[in-house]
Amino acid sequence: MKKQGSTYVFERPVYVAGYAACVGTKEGQGPLGSCFDVVLTDNRYGQETWEKAESAMVETAARRAVSKANLTEGDIGCALGGDLLNQCIASGYAMRQLGQPYFGLYGACSTMAESLLLGCALIAGGFEDTALCMASSHFCSAERQYRYPLEYGGQRPPTAQWTVTGAGAVVLCARQTSLRVTRATPGRVYDPGIKDAANMGAAMAQSAYETLRQFFLDSGTGPADYDLIATGDLGAIGSALLESLFRGDGMPLGAQYTDCGLLIFDRKTQDVHAGGSGCGCCASVLCGHILPQMQQGNLRRVLLCATGAMMSPVSVNQGESIPGICHLLELEVCK
Amino acid sequence: MKKQGSTYVFERPVYVAGYAACVGTKEGQGPLGSCFDVVLTDNRYGQETWEKAESAMVETAARRAVSKANLTEGDIGCALGGDLLNQCIASGYAMRQLGQPYFGLYGACSTMAESLLLGCALIAGGFEDTALCMASSHFCSAERQYRYPLEYGGQRPPTAQWTVTGAGAVVLCARQTSLRVTRATPGRVYDPGIKDAANMGAAMAQSAYETLRQFFLDSGTGPADYDLIATGDLGAIGSALLESLFRGDGMPLGAQYTDCGLLIFDRKTQDVHAGGSGCGCCASVLCGHILPQMQQGNLRRVLLCATGAMMSPVSVNQGESIPGICHLLELEVCK
Repeated sequence: MKKQGSTYVFERPVYVAGYAACVGTKEGQGPLGSCFDVVLTDNRYGQETWEKAESAMVETAARRAVSKANLTEGDIGCALGGDLLNQCIASGYAMRQLGQPYFGLYGACSTMAESLLLGCALIAGGFEDTALCMASSHFCSAERQYRYPLEYGGQRPPTAQWTVTGAGAVVLCARQTSLRVTRATPGRVYDPGIKDAANMGAAMAQSAYETLRQFFLDSGTGPADYDLIATGDLGAIGSALLESLFRGDGMPLGAQYTDCGLLIFDRKTQDVHAGGSGCGCCASVLCGHILPQMQQGNLRRVLLCATGAMMSPVSVNQGESIPGICHLLELEVCK
Repeated sequence: MKKQGSTYVFERPVYVAGYAACVGTKEGQGPLGSCFDVVLTDNRYGQETWEKAESAMVETAARRAVSKANLTEGDIGCALGGDLLNQCIASGYAMRQLGQPYFGLYGACSTMAESLLLGCALIAGGFEDTALCMASSHFCSAERQYRYPLEYGGQRPPTAQWTVTGAGAVVLCARQTSLRVTRATPGRVYDPGIKDAANMGAAMAQSAYETLRQFFLDSGTGPADYDLIATGDLGAIGSALLESLFRGDGMPLGAQYTDCGLLIFDRKTQDVHAGGSGCGCCASVLCGHILPQMQQGNLRRVLLCATGAMMSPVSVNQGESIPGICHLLELEVCK
């Protein structure tokens, strides 16, 4: 068994061959704006609808990642991806264009890590030599679907997060490169009982804590062994909760801990309240910022912990609380 | 590489340890009614809402499958599953109760095969010894979400299919049993250009054709090598289209071909128009009928080809056509 506790160990190495991020205008104006491969000048991206724009962004990120891996679309064994839209149409319609065998995923905002984890398992298990892993979200399509039509101008409470308009895609491969995924921990569904759909960070913090703790236990590592520990989109409230949970264990996460939802926007000037969220948050920060920083030698060992809230407007309206999930990946520079 | 063409070959054998199906009242009155583990006497299943009832059905099927495998929930390494509800809440909330590490999937009505395929890859790849694979759908929750509220009494055209109220769960394992998954072909997204959301069978027929053809090519087999070839939920129209596509190739599928959507209901007396559909159709027919028939020695080699339509009401309302996907599994009796 290639498993320590609940953690998968990739004995047949899995490498990162290429990656790309395509983001919206607001994300392009944020602190990481210069890092992304493509920044839209119009969030409709030349499409008739936001949903079609999101699908086009996934396709752009995927094609760019394949090209940066010096591969063609025909070289890709399979694709794994998902998004927040009902029935995951952004990814489904993108795959109609891309054409590879496709595993549709739904992990809410944890989807980027879920796709990488399963892509690694397919490569390390010997079923694929290359896999395309991707995820996306779009502020306008998400607001309409989860909250209110934009035209309504609904007020956002301070705990609310801003869904990132962005897509990220990573090409994994069995051929050696300078970046490697070494281990991964699939997450369980935890429900801390939060019922406020405008406070997703709090709903997801426990799942991040449980998965990280499980990984540290399985791997015998601790926060100090990593140059960066990044959660997906806990935002200001969820990441403070996560830090306090680890402090309570006498194992503070330290200064190397951050959250993709805090990196992608400037909370002081960009009016995003508790920070960024959405599948595209972790996906675009990974592909636009974290992987390039690793490739440039500024980070050597990284934990990516993508969090997701497994709710729907229907479940919340029916009085259900919001369970969370968190999938974790360990990334390392090889040379 | 454990891959022939696009087909995964499970060299480390993957076995079926247990399976169970939980279905609704109408399904219990159909031709397979006596085969299912649990038949609801009330489609709300003691819950306040249909969505919660669907989630409880998944949980029932999963717990029953684990128990029939002579295992406990703690023995299960991971779970893979999904459903048709927005944000896959039936599976997500069921996993809150079940507790295993969870990979959420969205493959529309192909989800049961997608979960089995990835579950097999995790076991054959050496990452898991046991995996719980599951899918569900519910007529009432699906009608409200995809079409009209039931109270509206919308007319259904003859091409429409009836979403099965049902859930199926399979426990896969590395320990030898009498049933084995030998090969699997992940599907690509194909779009034949159908825009009628009340004719999903036609939209999905091409993807079933492409995946089956790919599998026959990769494996060097043909229809005559199998005792049963079952598509997921093409219904009367889609399965006739699929048969005609293979006849056109000079390779008729033969009398061993059928469709789960035609098996689960009696079209003459149950007013289901073109047949059954939904993730729960293929899942419950597999767990209630096909796997028991194999275990009883009535079927030795089976192909399960679960089809899905990768659309949403939003994408159809935005003028998009309906792409399909089909994942295939080869099942064999070992002794």
